[in-house]
Amino acid sequence: MNSADNAADIPAASSGAETTDERFERGLALLRTLGGQERPAVLDSLADIAPDLGHMTVAFGYGDVMSRPGLSLRQREIATVAALAALGNAAPQLRFHIDGALNVGVSAAEVVEILIHTAVYAGFPAALNGIGAAREVFEKRPDAAATPVDSEPLPGDRYERGLAKLAEVDGHAGDQVVASMQDIAPDLARYIVEFAFGDIYSRPALDLKCREIASVAMCTALGTAAPQLRVHIHGLLNVGGSREEVIEVITQMAGYAGFPAALNGITAAREVFEERGAGQ
Amino acid sequence: MNSADNAADIPAASSGAETTDERFERGLALLRTLGGQERPAVLDSLADIAPDLGHMTVAFGYGDVMSRPGLSLRQREIATVAALAALGNAAPQLRFHIDGALNVGVSAAEVVEILIHTAVYAGFPAALNGIGAAREVFEKRPDAAATPVDSEPLPGDRYERGLAKLAEVDGHAGDQVVASMQDIAPDLARYIVEFAFGDIYSRPALDLKCREIASVAMCTALGTAAPQLRVHIHGLLNVGGSREEVIEVITQMAGYAGFPAALNGITAAREVFEERGAGQ
Amino acid sequence: MNSADNAADIPAASSGAETTDERFERGLALLRTLGGQERPAVLDSLADIAPDLGHMTVAFGYGDVMSRPGLSLRQREIATVAALAALGNAAPQLRFHIDGALNVGVSAAEVVEILIHTAVYAGFPAALNGIGAAREVFEKRPDAAATPVDSEPLPGDRYERGLAKLAEVDGHAGDQVVASMQDIAPDLARYIVEFAFGDIYSRPALDLKCREIASVAMCTALGTAAPQLRVHIHGLLNVGGSREEVIEVITQMAGYAGFPAALNGITAAREVFEERGAGQ
Repeated sequence: MNSADNAADIPAASSGAETTDERFERGLALLRTLGGQERPAVLDSLADIAPDLGHMTVAFGYGDVMSRPGLSLRQREIATVAALAALGNAAPQLRFHIDGALNVGVSAAEVVEILIHTAVYAGFPAALNGIGAAREVFEKRPDAAATPVDSEPLPGDRYERGLAKLAEVDGHAGDQVVASMQDIAPDLARYIVEFAFGDIYSRPALDLKCREIASVAMCTALGTAAPQLRVHIHGLLNVGGSREEVIEVITQMAGYAGFPAALNGITAAREVFEERGAGQ
Repeated sequence: MNSADNAADIPAASSGAETTDERFERGLALLRTLGGQERPAVLDSLADIAPDLGHMTVAFGYGDVMSRPGLSLRQREIATVAALAALGNAAPQLRFHIDGALNVGVSAAEVVEILIHTAVYAGFPAALNGIGAAREVFEKRPDAAATPVDSEPLPGDRYERGLAKLAEVDGHAGDQVVASMQDIAPDLARYIVEFAFGDIYSRPALDLKCREIASVAMCTALGTAAPQLRVHIHGLLNVGGSREEVIEVITQMAGYAGFPAALNGITAAREVFEERGAGQ
Repeated sequence: MNSADNAADIPAASSGAETTDERFERGLALLRTLGGQERPAVLDSLADIAPDLGHMTVAFGYGDVMSRPGLSLRQREIATVAALAALGNAAPQLRFHIDGALNVGVSAAEVVEILIHTAVYAGFPAALNGIGAAREVFEKRPDAAATPVDSEPLPGDRYERGLAKLAEVDGHAGDQVVASMQDIAPDLARYIVEFAFGDIYSRPALDLKCREIASVAMCTALGTAAPQLRVHIHGLLNVGGSREEVIEVITQMAGYAGFPAALNGITAAREVFEERGAGQ
């Protein structure tokens, strides 16, 4: 599922006590892989007034965080694209990471699918503006140009299909969310089943583990969805993710949405891990 | 107050078990009313790389959600314009819905007033940038061009006027918010009375029910204002809104700010409804 | 530390019961100082469709809030620039206040440093896009043009340096945050020490009190960082800020992020003040 190993020639992040030069060099190597350029644009674009920020972006953002083991670079870019699209306020970075995702093994069809997935967590404007960013990137890349992604209609009833998918992701917790709204907003519960799980999660273009990596990334980055973050930490664990992978996705968000977002995400993870006990 | 009935020729949303084609056709009819075009631009703009997202926007966003009974299309557009302006990260959609609002019976003066109202919940930058979006839309419409909205000075003392308006919207809860801040931030309490209620809520260009629809929409969409969302769910009920209307505004936000925002809004509504008991 | 007194010729805000004309005139005087123009652009830019919003921006935003005693205008602009950069959705206002900050005694190097500081609370995209806004402003000002800010490497080990700085800001609370994550995300704790405090807070270009003013402003405006807001209210008090200054920073955010953000900030301040008891 995540067999892509694009980080082959990037040294692993060590745990502290290394020099800033080593961190910078490791970040630079990763950025070259991601951006496809010998000299990352972020360094040049900051050289005039904030060269230190450029250096930190490389040494911390890429040398420390994005170089960590525990997730493939492909998975990390799925998380980043989802989070930046959901935040909706960082168009240049979203374009960079859509391009980066394509460079580390995410297909154009998968990029589109991640952006469609953001509609569930951040609304249609986020998804639509994300597609706009993707179009700008795709137009510059002949390899991504010819990608009209139009699925076949999904088989069966939307509600039944959504209910099965919801059970796959959330186990009994999904039923409870739906049941808990019958008294007050039954149609919103129905839309979660029909639209979020029947229409979106059921689409074959992105596997469930990638979807849940994206969901955890978005709920962490937005910072406004604590109950849903807990549900989808469970979800990621339910569809084959490990606790380490959960922590990696959340930690990565420190770079894209700030430390408070990551810290509050860790609080949610701790609660979920305690609920699940020693097992998985 | 909401006698505008622009949804006359749009079939009502049924409760599940209908075909996707029926949902799409209903959404298309609504979008034609809203956008004033035979062929909605959102379909063409996504046709190249994400046609399914275009289809979902129509079938789910408009066919399921915006077609629901319980609020007029005019009220729904007031909620959407307020929410998108408050989020501040979806300029193309904000322009589309300002235009849409004008097409379903919201006047240019009311659009301006909704955007001024957002200053209270999302700050002046949101209001100012919202006005910028409105200007772009108005410039393309001769019917909205000549609308300098300059009110007469409101009568009486700002504080007294605000206190009376606050009581009208919040009942005793407003007093409590003001009283609870006397120990630590009395001037912020004073600004709420003078500015939010004395200057803004007292303006005649938008009635209180529309203001509270906008307030509930913004607090739900932002996702960072849970205590204030509860206050304004009470407020909407206090100024003549029904529980159904509260649920409709919150449900609609699933499409503009994502399902977590709507779900957390429903949690707030449940708390308020329980507080108020069986009555209104 | 904050000896700059750029509000010399601006009358102090009175506590209610004054006329709107007086408030407007006071706001206008402040805006002239801040924007460096006889006639503030915000009035002209709104004159066509929302002149009342222009009037309110001046009378409330500048005449009431920004004219308050308790913080210098320099400190207020540090708070505003940080908050707008962190929100990431108000580029025109961010540019205006970067220019305003330069006009009231914030140096170009300090502006850059505030924006670098935002990386900790809102992520690298916020910092990078903030620098982009600063560049646009600097290019128009010969006095800010020649400002490549490149620090000398900071002395000593990043972790040790960060730990000392964390203790200076947070006292024992910092240790507890780090300790509390050893079970589940020790590397994220390490990054807080190494990157947030060792790399960023240790930079000499901005003093700790200004950094904590910026941190409180950002956590209040984002509205998604309640635990961190409490930590940094403690922090601001620990590095020489007063309770009055805490309240001023939070109150100011009503204008930039809306009243719910400010109200929830006051709730956090009340909790911190109670924890600390009668003393400081």
